[in-house]
Amino acid sequence: MRRVSLQQLNWEQYLADFNALASIGQNEAGGMERLAFSEADQQAHKLLAQMAENAGFEVKWDGAGNLWITRRGTDDGNPDFPPLLLGSHMDTVPDGGKYDGLLGVMTAFHAMRLLDQVPQRRTVTLIVFRCEESSRFNCATIGSKLLAEQLTGQMLKSYVDKEGISAYDAIRELGGNPDNLYLERKYIKDSFGFIEMHIEQGPVLGERNTDIGIVNHIAAPHRFHIIVKGTAAHSGACPMGSRNDALTGAAEIILAVERLGREYADQRIVATVGKCDVINGAMNIVPGHVELYVDIRGIDQEIVTEVVTKLHMELAEIASKRNLSIEPTILSQERPVKLDDDMAEFLVEQCLKNMLTFLHMVSGAGHDTMYMAKLTRAAMFFVPCEKGISHNRAEAVTDEAVQNGLRLMYATLVRICTLDPEDEREKAEMDRLLIEEAYQ
Amino acid sequence: MRRVSLQQLNWEQYLADFNALASIGQNEAGGMERLAFSEADQQAHKLLAQMAENAGFEVKWDGAGNLWITRRGTDDGNPDFPPLLLGSHMDTVPDGGKYDGLLGVMTAFHAMRLLDQVPQRRTVTLIVFRCEESSRFNCATIGSKLLAEQLTGQMLKSYVDKEGISAYDAIRELGGNPDNLYLERKYIKDSFGFIEMHIEQGPVLGERNTDIGIVNHIAAPHRFHIIVKGTAAHSGACPMGSRNDALTGAAEIILAVERLGREYADQRIVATVGKCDVINGAMNIVPGHVELYVDIRGIDQEIVTEVVTKLHMELAEIASKRNLSIEPTILSQERPVKLDDDMAEFLVEQCLKNMLTFLHMVSGAGHDTMYMAKLTRAAMFFVPCEKGISHNRAEAVTDEAVQNGLRLMYATLVRICTLDPEDEREKAEMDRLLIEEAYQ
Repeated sequence: MRRVSLQQLNWEQYLADFNALASIGQNEAGGMERLAFSEADQQAHKLLAQMAENAGFEVKWDGAGNLWITRRGTDDGNPDFPPLLLGSHMDTVPDGGKYDGLLGVMTAFHAMRLLDQVPQRRTVTLIVFRCEESSRFNCATIGSKLLAEQLTGQMLKSYVDKEGISAYDAIRELGGNPDNLYLERKYIKDSFGFIEMHIEQGPVLGERNTDIGIVNHIAAPHRFHIIVKGTAAHSGACPMGSRNDALTGAAEIILAVERLGREYADQRIVATVGKCDVINGAMNIVPGHVELYVDIRGIDQEIVTEVVTKLHMELAEIASKRNLSIEPTILSQERPVKLDDDMAEFLVEQCLKNMLTFLHMVSGAGHDTMYMAKLTRAAMFFVPCEKGISHNRAEAVTDEAVQNGLRLMYATLVRICTLDPEDEREKAEMDRLLIEEAYQ
Repeated sequence: MRRVSLQQLNWEQYLADFNALASIGQNEAGGMERLAFSEADQQAHKLLAQMAENAGFEVKWDGAGNLWITRRGTDDGNPDFPPLLLGSHMDTVPDGGKYDGLLGVMTAFHAMRLLDQVPQRRTVTLIVFRCEESSRFNCATIGSKLLAEQLTGQMLKSYVDKEGISAYDAIRELGGNPDNLYLERKYIKDSFGFIEMHIEQGPVLGERNTDIGIVNHIAAPHRFHIIVKGTAAHSGACPMGSRNDALTGAAEIILAVERLGREYADQRIVATVGKCDVINGAMNIVPGHVELYVDIRGIDQEIVTEVVTKLHMELAEIASKRNLSIEPTILSQERPVKLDDDMAEFLVEQCLKNMLTFLHMVSGAGHDTMYMAKLTRAAMFFVPCEKGISHNRAEAVTDEAVQNGLRLMYATLVRICTLDPEDEREKAEMDRLLIEEAYQ
């Protein structure tokens, strides 16, 4: 059995296209500044649409601003060959890495282009989702949530960025209409299934020296906004014993969140305070008002609930001990998502054929796949990133990891799109085809 | 002995003027937004200058943008009657209180106006200092530091606000020149002395039910900027055991600062973290970079040094335990200032005459008086503010406290400016005058 060769992957073209897109919105330090719906984000979407048109693909934008790129197969429209969907995103966190999102998009796009080499019967559509990151509006995966009816235009009006622009306005500004996604939703529901590739964003694959992570569960975040209020006072004139310091109370909360995360680490809990804003903070003011953002994730709903309950007990204790007002508000409270076993099987099969080591794993990070899983059979796989560093300009991926991801994506497209994968005779025929034609 | 009466204080006019100035830069919640050199700050300075001109006083602005208001006495220019100086500031912290700074300015200004009622021989000059608060440029008492040669124009270029405007540019923008203050410096050096009134900004006078605090020492702040660096990572994908969280490290520092402050509270130490900035903080990122601002004050230099040394030991321990880089930088390291006993004696004398209860106390907060003390004999007194709350829109002061402050300021002006206070015969004569003429 021979794996897809480097030559077949057309590596040079891949790199050129990836680098062209990765350079959009790069800051001086090398970090990415492609905040959702920003000028840089929009520029990247337009460049990719141009590349897709040049490749002869069909291009459209949906009401959420998601970019749809379709390569039609010879059996397009045949109900026995419903389209296969791929997807990922291109927006980044502030000062983020090059690979988060973009690598998945480029891998899917390039694998679609490689289908030139085989007889493609099934149509393939790549969806580039908008606003996967929560950095701008404190709301993640907006494009896929709208498609899966987990958000409405009305709800989007309440998610507002630092400048006061709502996610709703940002989409309308692009000419979108977040409440007009009926046809797209039906297309996804009627599809063969959905696959997303992504960097792991964690250290597990690297630590175990494994090529591919096949995701079985996505741990959904429980997110809280916590307002801590004490009494602002002059930092020189207010004696230690007379203080109601909101920041020292917040510091205890930050450490409590970490302690709970560590206590439940072997049950796959992660717990993080990602933001701490001292409102009207100044060097000479004892802080009177602090706001924290907390993110707790797990794959077992009961364990997550247990951790969240314990955190609330700790908040009450800190509030009472320090005479502070501590008010948590739930920002999101989603259930862990189980992905589709049959779709994962296609990935396993192609890992084996391509001599790629793999393991089944949990995604701690949320992804658009969670919402596609509400509409169709969804699968997801990871490639390792160095030291697990992500959401950071230091994010790095080896060429080998990228090639392995591309190899697996392409082999899976060939497997699913050239012949009827449900037909055992065709499956055998396809194996022959893959080995003798595609795998030269 | 009768105290200065409420009628003599012209209370209605005082209130009208105070409220006119206090309304400038007030936000919807009732907090003050008169950041140094802002439009509101500038508007307040212009209105006060207008009031002073209407009262027949001389008005000028110095190279630092400080406003000088002078009421000439009949012996102006006589070297035996050098001018008495008064001063305070009108800028505020963000969302600050009405009384901080402004009360001292208005009390001095109004007391000068009340001199209509007595024969004024000595000239009195009120200096309204610029940028007393550190909120905008992370540098406090800029106006008085420039006068006392503790800052130069060149140094001001390195203090930059959030928008990138330097303190130097802000002063130049007003038409000032921070390096041209020779004549003003000489005027202060040759003066009789300086007096500032301020709200206490702490709870001591209220707790002891005392009218006036006569300040003997001002505790100077040691200020640090601490950069905590770990590794940013995805909050879902990075397991608890693989994290280098800069914010949880910062939380330990915040609690260590509080613990040290409490440990040394009976030695008059206060220790505060007033700002905590998570750089590129987002809900889905384990923080990789946090910056803290620490303020430690005391009146005994040795004790302050001991606390600072202990804090550095704790920083090293946290850095090593959590594998973080923790870098403190000194922002200011000033020595506690002792004020002038002879000038304080004038205040004591007038407290006694006016039946005001008083105590000698330390100022934990820094004031422009610290820098005036480098040039002339300086005194300072406090009136109580409710619950010691300051630097906060909840700051409140009773009418009685304001009237007591005004009474003491006016009586002291009469005492110092109507006759030669060094001459015992004149002193007796003045006592007669104060009781029989001024104190009707």
